[in-house]
Amino acid sequence: MKRLVLFLISILIGASITWSQTIRKEIVLPHLQDYITLKCDFHMHTVFSDGNVWPTTRVEEAWAEGLDAISITDHLEYTPHKDYVPVNHEAPFDIARNLAKQRNLILIKGIEITKSMPPGHFNVLFVKEAIPIFNEDYKLALREAKNQGAFVIWNHPGWRAQAPDGPVWMKEHQELYEENLFQGVEVANFDEWYPEVLDWAIEKKLTVFSNSDIHEPMDMYLSANNLDRRPITLVFACESSEEGIREALFARRTAGWFNNYLFARKEILESLLFASIKVNKISGDEKSVSYKVENLTDFQFDFVLEHEPARKINLPVRSSTIITLPANRMDGILMVQNWLHGADIPLKTELTKLFR
Amino acid sequence: MKRLVLFLISILIGASITWSQTIRKEIVLPHLQDYITLKCDFHMHTVFSDGNVWPTTRVEEAWAEGLDAISITDHLEYTPHKDYVPVNHEAPFDIARNLAKQRNLILIKGIEITKSMPPGHFNVLFVKEAIPIFNEDYKLALREAKNQGAFVIWNHPGWRAQAPDGPVWMKEHQELYEENLFQGVEVANFDEWYPEVLDWAIEKKLTVFSNSDIHEPMDMYLSANNLDRRPITLVFACESSEEGIREALFARRTAGWFNNYLFARKEILESLLFASIKVNKISGDEKSVSYKVENLTDFQFDFVLEHEPARKINLPVRSSTIITLPANRMDGILMVQNWLHGADIPLKTELTKLFR
Amino acid sequence: MKRLVLFLISILIGASITWSQTIRKEIVLPHLQDYITLKCDFHMHTVFSDGNVWPTTRVEEAWAEGLDAISITDHLEYTPHKDYVPVNHEAPFDIARNLAKQRNLILIKGIEITKSMPPGHFNVLFVKEAIPIFNEDYKLALREAKNQGAFVIWNHPGWRAQAPDGPVWMKEHQELYEENLFQGVEVANFDEWYPEVLDWAIEKKLTVFSNSDIHEPMDMYLSANNLDRRPITLVFACESSEEGIREALFARRTAGWFNNYLFARKEILESLLFASIKVNKISGDEKSVSYKVENLTDFQFDFVLEHEPARKINLPVRSSTIITLPANRMDGILMVQNWLHGADIPLKTELTKLFR
Amino acid sequence: MKRLVLFLISILIGASITWSQTIRKEIVLPHLQDYITLKCDFHMHTVFSDGNVWPTTRVEEAWAEGLDAISITDHLEYTPHKDYVPVNHEAPFDIARNLAKQRNLILIKGIEITKSMPPGHFNVLFVKEAIPIFNEDYKLALREAKNQGAFVIWNHPGWRAQAPDGPVWMKEHQELYEENLFQGVEVANFDEWYPEVLDWAIEKKLTVFSNSDIHEPMDMYLSANNLDRRPITLVFACESSEEGIREALFARRTAGWFNNYLFARKEILESLLFASIKVNKISGDEKSVSYKVENLTDFQFDFVLEHEPARKINLPVRSSTIITLPANRMDGILMVQNWLHGADIPLKTELTKLFR
Repeated sequence: MKRLVLFLISILIGASITWSQTIRKEIVLPHLQDYITLKCDFHMHTVFSDGNVWPTTRVEEAWAEGLDAISITDHLEYTPHKDYVPVNHEAPFDIARNLAKQRNLILIKGIEITKSMPPGHFNVLFVKEAIPIFNEDYKLALREAKNQGAFVIWNHPGWRAQAPDGPVWMKEHQELYEENLFQGVEVANFDEWYPEVLDWAIEKKLTVFSNSDIHEPMDMYLSANNLDRRPITLVFACESSEEGIREALFARRTAGWFNNYLFARKEILESLLFASIKVNKISGDEKSVSYKVENLTDFQFDFVLEHEPARKINLPVRSSTIITLPANRMDGILMVQNWLHGADIPLKTELTKLFR
Repeated sequence: MKRLVLFLISILIGASITWSQTIRKEIVLPHLQDYITLKCDFHMHTVFSDGNVWPTTRVEEAWAEGLDAISITDHLEYTPHKDYVPVNHEAPFDIARNLAKQRNLILIKGIEITKSMPPGHFNVLFVKEAIPIFNEDYKLALREAKNQGAFVIWNHPGWRAQAPDGPVWMKEHQELYEENLFQGVEVANFDEWYPEVLDWAIEKKLTVFSNSDIHEPMDMYLSANNLDRRPITLVFACESSEEGIREALFARRTAGWFNNYLFARKEILESLLFASIKVNKISGDEKSVSYKVENLTDFQFDFVLEHEPARKINLPVRSSTIITLPANRMDGILMVQNWLHGADIPLKTELTKLFR
Repeated sequence: MKRLVLFLISILIGASITWSQTIRKEIVLPHLQDYITLKCDFHMHTVFSDGNVWPTTRVEEAWAEGLDAISITDHLEYTPHKDYVPVNHEAPFDIARNLAKQRNLILIKGIEITKSMPPGHFNVLFVKEAIPIFNEDYKLALREAKNQGAFVIWNHPGWRAQAPDGPVWMKEHQELYEENLFQGVEVANFDEWYPEVLDWAIEKKLTVFSNSDIHEPMDMYLSANNLDRRPITLVFACESSEEGIREALFARRTAGWFNNYLFARKEILESLLFASIKVNKISGDEKSVSYKVENLTDFQFDFVLEHEPARKINLPVRSSTIITLPANRMDGILMVQNWLHGADIPLKTELTKLFR
Repeated sequence: MKRLVLFLISILIGASITWSQTIRKEIVLPHLQDYITLKCDFHMHTVFSDGNVWPTTRVEEAWAEGLDAISITDHLEYTPHKDYVPVNHEAPFDIARNLAKQRNLILIKGIEITKSMPPGHFNVLFVKEAIPIFNEDYKLALREAKNQGAFVIWNHPGWRAQAPDGPVWMKEHQELYEENLFQGVEVANFDEWYPEVLDWAIEKKLTVFSNSDIHEPMDMYLSANNLDRRPITLVFACESSEEGIREALFARRTAGWFNNYLFARKEILESLLFASIKVNKISGDEKSVSYKVENLTDFQFDFVLEHEPARKINLPVRSSTIITLPANRMDGILMVQNWLHGADIPLKTELTKLFR
């Protein structure tokens, strides 16, 4: 009997820690009326530049975290492991594509053009061939990217190593912009975000990105920082495919999701809000009315009523709260303090649009 | 400036730990085709018998945990705090009802008839008046409950203090059963469940319950045991109201949810399964087909394919996995090992019903 | 066999959630050279005033959380449950004392004098008889407390309900202070702390307190706020006894521990720091030297080097980090930003005192 | 002001997720009377065989998790990434050694001899030169390892891919054993342990190991499995150095620590127990005596009193409990059910040795 119990115990120990990387934690977010919401990360590295993981690991990580699409964007100009790993700009995509297919994860071929500031670093998505883009002259490099039909992102404009005084829109960037050599910009990267760059993106009609730029294993970063989630770019696409993502990026239908902040154009934020929050009246008389306000999503909301700024309402994932309002104050304004469509412009909406 | 920073820090400290008991963590479960799913706990105590919290705390706890209905069921015959708290069987309901109304939580008036075994303890729900039920003769007590139109549950038939050799269906229980003096039975209570009792419930057409029987603060119990959730009785009701619950209890439309196990009649388990799992084909050829299997709920599934018993598939809350099957084995049987409709009868379903 | 497996499963389920409130999570803190460090909370409520738990629950909670001493301090003048629970100011202590003895927890008899501002609320510790302290005239009440040899704390001087513009030291407080009718003050209470009050405490030689003032079950508060720990008053006593605590309180040997902040006199903070941190040289040459800096405790440190203010070093519980310094900068100053001996005065110490 | 607040918010966001891989979580374990306790993992892979991380990542992971020593043991005979990463058996050590030195982590040069069963896989530690060990004939390979003064471990004898019916000590193993071509054996590997192998190790005087054999990023494995800690080999050494570890391995002073189980010789378990548990009498009379039993360590204990087998006492990390014994039963036996010195032999000790 002792042996049997022990046998069962050893079975159970085994069972309890079975390798379960084949489990994917889904991220619950609403789709928009005409678009599906894809969770994407368009900036990451592997041993083929200065990253520390094998390309398939980037697929496993993204799939397990609930992402729908990634791009591996190893540096063209910076390959510090080359004494041990021969330079090969096609390798990351070639190695990872099969696993991505099995996992139903969209893998977009990318590379990072890596120049000093100005103009800094640029991610090239939907690359056809990496080598021709490798060029000492950054303008020629970006023109070749354009020739290949690529979508180009200006990366981390506020990275301290290149922008010690904060992000600066230099004449070089203006030239590239005027020639339409980049179409998007990272408002958030790794562990920081740049308020000014959100303003640029809105004003200059650049597509907003929030990317991880991860070099280490992702879980090492998440657990060391007690984070639930990497920086994510939400893409609102007509279909879940590489082509769907391409169309949405050029059409600027994205939002940056970083550490509970959401950055996007006002219309996008509004649509997401209405699809994320459910409000039911639960009681009321002529003096006051009580509503149950429910967050159906994995977003987390920091609400404030404009006429009562001290009353903060933090609504975590899939939770609800009860809000009681004077019967005559239904004309109030609700602010979502962590959803921004400008450096210091939180989303506002009339209560009456939500409470009905 | 120092002062300003300090002021801001002190604001932030305050903000970060604001008393947020007004946040409710929603439990995401599917409704059935014709019934809504209510999360209930019909067994708990307060300072008015041998519990250690005030009645309003039971409402706050249940609301915050995402429950829809509770019954406070203090002992009629056991009131150890009476030197300090005068015996008052109406008090728990009277004290808690207002807060329950504000929170939109259904509060069902209940008491616990507390006899030695046989026949043990019985919860009386939908009590009209508690005092007349207080009777040394348990049969008279239960007849009065019946007179009041109450629903009666035999509590914890396997509680070791009263049933050291496991649950026994004695002649006294048979008599009460034949006279229809109880209609339900606890298959799970506090920290244990009784496989045999599940068989009784199915065979004798008793309503299945899983209740907390909590005496301490609920969070003390949950955090000391690293649990996410108390034992819960799911009620499948026509409407979210006391009357809706009463009708469902008498119609035996419940499931016991205990520590990731679900106990119910087969039809109920099957309906819940189909509403909880979403399957999409993601790839396939003539040899094999791959499916994404997604758990849309806060249930947690332990799947096994009958023809491949070593291949356990644990699917946590709101996660998914990929299952690849030989193209010619679509006729297999899927077992949900932690969903039982008998002591050792897990739910089985044909794969073809899920994969389409 | 099926039955056996099921039986084993049910055993295991049971085992995994056994009621384990008899487990105490120890808090690892250093003792001082001549004093032992006691973890205390001198402010909490039960159903005998406006709290929601039974007195024994306060003992169980404190013991399980690793505390050494508590005082239950129900309001003398505010007893909203009196329709159901007759007013009885001796009851909380009488009910809780036996369990406290079994748990080896020091239980200090206390009550809260509850007046509007001025002068506000005052906790009376080491009460002999509660009734005589009940007096409409707060000065007479406090004089009776003094007659009984009690130690008196001015509670939450910055509580917004009584101090909407922040803490104010009024002439009434000055009078009480001059008559030595209170000896301590809460710098932190429940979910807030008052920077100005820390300055008062240091300047006027009042004993510093950080108390929970908890009304709900403690775990409800902690889990709703994702906190590890309630506000705690550390007492540095000659012995672990009621008398040891009394002596230490009158001698002002305390620190307030609130949400990773520590408030105390400079000498106390310094002694604690040297006993909490262990530094070992791990490598070095003529240019730079590397040290392993280890936190041996459950404190959490936010360090900054004064000459390099951007370099923040957060050292969580029982963790270590490596600090590399220029060989010629060993004369620097280390600031512990979350350990304060004044509203905006973090503890500073010379590096050379630590690195040796 | 808005801008200021926003600026401060952005600072804070940044601060809260600063890359903190330079924090090391210490593992609190006792040293033995004459030996220091080193936490080690002697089996892991990188991109230079079939692993998915860069060698420096193995150092960062181990250091952050509180380990003192590791060995990277890439397969000699299995290098599936060779189309992209040229075979180089010296590379992992060469690449990782500098970072290991900065982190004060002992890095032991190792490789894995990878043969089909019999005899299976063998880790070679303290390798001088890897190439000469590469030999089709496993016996010649192991003789070369011996020539280099290496310590050799038989890896995962119960790995299902090679031992579908459980671990078997074949004649080939007997020959190697008699020629002293291996000195240690893995009792635990990755996610399983082998009870029979523990018996072998004790009987045949082989050194006990518990190693991770990790191929993926370690945090991906830990977070996917909700584990706090990888499999660890505790080494009881005279000094914290490579030479100290070598001496201890040959002297069989190790313990395997796997998923709360500890495997070792009886004397080692006993010494660790006495150094881990602190017992104080807190009260007593002629009938019964109460003791506070405190776990000072990061071990977790599952105790049972032999004369009262139903009374399980689970003592988590740095927690305590109160045990009350009849005054006349101090002669009882305490079993540590999760500390084993044989497949089904838990450590037993007389209570009187602990309670004093």
